[in-house]
Amino acid sequence: MAVIFPSRRVRKTPFTPGVEAAGVKGYTVYNHMLLPVVFDSVEADAAHLKQHVQVWDVSAERQVSLKGPDALRLMKLISPRDMDRMADDQCYYVPTVDHNGGMLNDPVAVKLAQDHYWLSLADGDLLQFVLGLAIARGLDVAIEEPDVSPLAVQGPKADELMARVFGDAVRDIRFFRYKKLPFMGRDMVVARSGWSKQGGFEIYVEGSENGMPLWDALFEAGADLNVRAGCPNTIERIESGLLSYGSDMRRDNTPYECGLGKFCNSPEDYIGKAALADQARSGPRRQIRPLVINGEIPPCTGSWPLLAQGRQVGQVASAVFSPEFDVNVAIGMVDRSHWDAGTVMEIETEGGRRTATVQEKFWR
Amino acid sequence: MAVIFPSRRVRKTPFTPGVEAAGVKGYTVYNHMLLPVVFDSVEADAAHLKQHVQVWDVSAERQVSLKGPDALRLMKLISPRDMDRMADDQCYYVPTVDHNGGMLNDPVAVKLAQDHYWLSLADGDLLQFVLGLAIARGLDVAIEEPDVSPLAVQGPKADELMARVFGDAVRDIRFFRYKKLPFMGRDMVVARSGWSKQGGFEIYVEGSENGMPLWDALFEAGADLNVRAGCPNTIERIESGLLSYGSDMRRDNTPYECGLGKFCNSPEDYIGKAALADQARSGPRRQIRPLVINGEIPPCTGSWPLLAQGRQVGQVASAVFSPEFDVNVAIGMVDRSHWDAGTVMEIETEGGRRTATVQEKFWR
Repeated sequence: MAVIFPSRRVRKTPFTPGVEAAGVKGYTVYNHMLLPVVFDSVEADAAHLKQHVQVWDVSAERQVSLKGPDALRLMKLISPRDMDRMADDQCYYVPTVDHNGGMLNDPVAVKLAQDHYWLSLADGDLLQFVLGLAIARGLDVAIEEPDVSPLAVQGPKADELMARVFGDAVRDIRFFRYKKLPFMGRDMVVARSGWSKQGGFEIYVEGSENGMPLWDALFEAGADLNVRAGCPNTIERIESGLLSYGSDMRRDNTPYECGLGKFCNSPEDYIGKAALADQARSGPRRQIRPLVINGEIPPCTGSWPLLAQGRQVGQVASAVFSPEFDVNVAIGMVDRSHWDAGTVMEIETEGGRRTATVQEKFWR
Repeated sequence: MAVIFPSRRVRKTPFTPGVEAAGVKGYTVYNHMLLPVVFDSVEADAAHLKQHVQVWDVSAERQVSLKGPDALRLMKLISPRDMDRMADDQCYYVPTVDHNGGMLNDPVAVKLAQDHYWLSLADGDLLQFVLGLAIARGLDVAIEEPDVSPLAVQGPKADELMARVFGDAVRDIRFFRYKKLPFMGRDMVVARSGWSKQGGFEIYVEGSENGMPLWDALFEAGADLNVRAGCPNTIERIESGLLSYGSDMRRDNTPYECGLGKFCNSPEDYIGKAALADQARSGPRRQIRPLVINGEIPPCTGSWPLLAQGRQVGQVASAVFSPEFDVNVAIGMVDRSHWDAGTVMEIETEGGRRTATVQEKFWR
């Protein structure tokens, strides 16, 4: 692996000084921004995350701000979810699709006001899609990337740490809901969400200048909780079945293929709805499945074909050894003919051919 | 600097095996894909590029394919350049802007047919903008990212090397024109273009499986020409005044600010035209300028404010020492009040404050 060079284009974040001081060992680039991927080791990071509490620089989850009289109209155009059911303090996981039903991104929408939404992005400039729609339709809505950088606090001690910094009000925040809570005199959106299943929060930090003060406050308050710098963890997120856009699914996949059909419930005529009608009725031809891969596996840096009698019946793009479950956990996109739990296939890795078995469910 | 991990999301290219074998020392990520940034050292790479010939994996210049009856109509919507003047074998540098005239990308458009264009992208998912427009307008045009990976052959010996592989026909290709030339029985678009001013070509390699055979053929044919693996070179491109979208200009800049006003000549009512009318008449308030920075400078990994009497009058996002010209060459966006050649300003770097002087022109 070679090194990565930041530039104005490959952006540092408000928390980069803290991340560097904490000894980050590897980055990825996500929405033109640095995203840490490992501090100690992926294994040690995972073990710590499951026991204590971590602070994650997930600034790379950039926001698209839709603000103006037509903001809701635009949201209804791109959201397969029923926007009229969204509560005022709610966060909505929204698979966004093109006119053929192909996934363009899977952001979390945050409702700030009736005329103001943020889309917290997976990797991809969905801003440009939304902007193209708004311009072509002549909608009265401003589409911007605001100076907002999410900071995640994840792990079983997250409630305790957050309560020490933001007060006990954080304990009452429900899953995928948020409260506006003050830090240094500025209200911040604090949501119970995050890209792990260890519990925790995401703080949408407005104003880059507030980044390091909050980072430092969390580490100071959490010294006796064994707080550490962390990041989305490959092992924990595969065990948890959390999908990565660009790896596990792309534009050639539909929400139904991704197991996200339950989020396609909008009564509106949203983009892609007609194309998805068939899969809504009959289900997809292939779908995301948890898999165990037998034997030693190399790092999964691309995609591995799943084979049955030499014919490709799917692929795996996320796989890693799980110390907790003592197996290689994997996420695959598998054809209907081979997606039943217990089905055994062959899988072609750079380290040689292995066998892979479909599981009943993800590990948590 | 930390290492970068490829994944299915951070894509390898058809030429990655060749790049790795050639000893790449650093990558950036560009359009969700690995882009090499240094092989020997940036200085040695630059010196070699100016004397010999290099093969560059610029697969990260991903293509957006616009194909269908409404392709030209869509191009006219997004192109500030007069599409009716585009020759059948032409490549067009097209600054693409939003409704406010803000730069969204600066691709090279390739005209493959009257109803088929490629946009060879700078870093950013312009596909999503074009797709949003096409869907909202109900245009009859397919918007896809095809399996096309550009390979650049750059340097003073590029004509000789290319002639050995593609035949003497390459010598007659004019600047920003292309010919379809066969390699292993498959016609490829070969254009006289590339992100250096050392001369050369870009081959739009269709079909990933053709990547390494072409790479190998070029190295075999060029052994006595001292051919090497290279990549867009920071020193050479700053000396040459070649702009990097995301660093030197972004969505808050107009084509006029980028010195690209000459490309805004379309008679059509393209997106952003009305917003640009004022700058078309009176010029922009700030503009790209070549600068020399005095003294030692650290690596430029962000942006450095230009200051006059403590007030910010611009910024620099590209700067490096040039061994050939024995100065620190830089690209800045400078306010009208301070953009005249010879103007001296202060500049704030991580290594301390320096002085910067506006130059008459770039170094080549």
